[in-house]
Amino acid sequence: MKCKRCRRAEAAVDLPSHHAAFCPDCFFLFFQRQVKEGIRKFRLLSPSDRVLVCVSGGKDSLVLWDVLMEMGYETEGLYIDLGIEGYSERSKEKVLAYAAARGKTPIVVDLAKEGVPIPEASRGARIPECSVCGTVKRYFFNRVASEGKFTVVATGHNLDDEAARLLGNLLHWHRDHLSRQHPYLPDSGAGLVRKVKPLWRVSELETASYGFLKGIDYVTEECPMSEDATSLVYKEVLSLIEEQMPGTRTVFYQGFLDPGNPFRRAPETRPRASGESATDTEDPEGAGTPRACASCGAPAWADICSFCRLKERVQRRRERRPERAPG
Amino acid sequence: MKCKRCRRAEAAVDLPSHHAAFCPDCFFLFFQRQVKEGIRKFRLLSPSDRVLVCVSGGKDSLVLWDVLMEMGYETEGLYIDLGIEGYSERSKEKVLAYAAARGKTPIVVDLAKEGVPIPEASRGARIPECSVCGTVKRYFFNRVASEGKFTVVATGHNLDDEAARLLGNLLHWHRDHLSRQHPYLPDSGAGLVRKVKPLWRVSELETASYGFLKGIDYVTEECPMSEDATSLVYKEVLSLIEEQMPGTRTVFYQGFLDPGNPFRRAPETRPRASGESATDTEDPEGAGTPRACASCGAPAWADICSFCRLKERVQRRRERRPERAPG
Repeated sequence: MKCKRCRRAEAAVDLPSHHAAFCPDCFFLFFQRQVKEGIRKFRLLSPSDRVLVCVSGGKDSLVLWDVLMEMGYETEGLYIDLGIEGYSERSKEKVLAYAAARGKTPIVVDLAKEGVPIPEASRGARIPECSVCGTVKRYFFNRVASEGKFTVVATGHNLDDEAARLLGNLLHWHRDHLSRQHPYLPDSGAGLVRKVKPLWRVSELETASYGFLKGIDYVTEECPMSEDATSLVYKEVLSLIEEQMPGTRTVFYQGFLDPGNPFRRAPETRPRASGESATDTEDPEGAGTPRACASCGAPAWADICSFCRLKERVQRRRERRPERAPG
Repeated sequence: MKCKRCRRAEAAVDLPSHHAAFCPDCFFLFFQRQVKEGIRKFRLLSPSDRVLVCVSGGKDSLVLWDVLMEMGYETEGLYIDLGIEGYSERSKEKVLAYAAARGKTPIVVDLAKEGVPIPEASRGARIPECSVCGTVKRYFFNRVASEGKFTVVATGHNLDDEAARLLGNLLHWHRDHLSRQHPYLPDSGAGLVRKVKPLWRVSELETASYGFLKGIDYVTEECPMSEDATSLVYKEVLSLIEEQMPGTRTVFYQGFLDPGNPFRRAPETRPRASGESATDTEDPEGAGTPRACASCGAPAWADICSFCRLKERVQRRRERRPERAPG
């Protein structure tokens, strides 16, 4: 099959949801246009932004970093070493190798050194791994962005991720989650940095194809802690629907983001007013502007922020029953 | 396994979504309570109602008729013979046999005699079968109800039907359909009778179990015209989700009906005011109170109602190219 755009080269990527098939070069062009349109639509980024790209070592985040660099944005990568045996080492390796080949050195946060490696923190605080991981990541996104004078944090969530999350939120009518689900979350003006998802228009198939055709080497294994069966079920059923009715995933997520949709509280687009209330919170119950954590100064909805509370619980447990050194 | 209610008899029906398993007698009690609660919740029916039950010969509608009779409602069955070779004869047989055993004679509308058997009407009007069928059924629901002084029309849609329809409406954000999807649609005060779905709380598994345990003989084949792949896909994926997370279908549909849900326009519950606008329309674009069709007097949003327009198109085509008699 020939490329539907140039009509010369062999097509390498078949995209039924776009009634298209592209050769590598035309696909890169298509992919970049999709990302550009996603950025333009909600003014996610501006040329003057300093972008902190959160890279896990997986395909989506490395592809995000790649395409943003190609588009000329000023970016740095942030890798958070979760302290998960084997998996974390392998992920870090991929991130460092990718960065080195582009003359970059990513910022690395080592959760073991910070006193909260995910497996131990989860056991110590008796909170599920994915939940602890979310709290810790959000904390460091904000802290590193603030310390490094970044204006925005970008994550690699793609259309499949966002549509699956939307389906889960709708099946359970999580109205507060629905009102906060958006590719653009404004900064709070109080230490919570703006967060954006520039890949919200591109599917997992598209990011995987981009990664493959660009020769980006990424970890293919899933995080061993994420036994998050529910989000996988939502992804699976949306894939079944997409197979029967190509394009449904896009219609579903884009229709949700439509300003007239009763479930979408319009996000404040830039430039924002100072003193706005936060919509991406460590503590989703919290409303209004956060105060400063009495312990670390980070944005908090209580005297002590949820990261410091977590750290203290882990520390207390460590003192009560010291874990034996392995081996 | 013993029945979770009486703890004596063997359980015959396992209901993971209710964390329950029942023997036949306790299951009938459970089933009736679910239907009662569904009726009570939105005041679908009152003891003084004359209920026209639409029976297709399938399990849901016969189970509906059965349970409403058991609960003491004054009911009559309406069977619409769609004129689909083989399928219609077999369905009609089941309806007549069921009714005869209960000393009832259903009202039968024969679409061939009315000039609009579904297969020919669909070809003649160049409208998909399911769409023609919907128009024709709605027309006769209203007409038979009005002629027979019925106060309400009841259909056998169950939880699986409604949840699948909801999922389809949400995936495509059909906002007008969403605002009209409800187990209770008030009458318009202008010839559009109230329509209710008393089985909205019970699953397909539950109606099938009720039918089986009561020895109700129904057609198991799907209508051969309904190649409605989409609604089957939605049902299939909801079943997959239900398997992994029992109870999700109920949370999904009941959460949708919650009065605080921005997508649910609260239906007017009885007693209704006269002159209300219709919410179940032949012509969903139409707003306000319908007028009377200049040809048949039925509620219409144009000079001629959609049924009469359909009939005329079929008639015109018949005159242009008479179909040969089969054989």
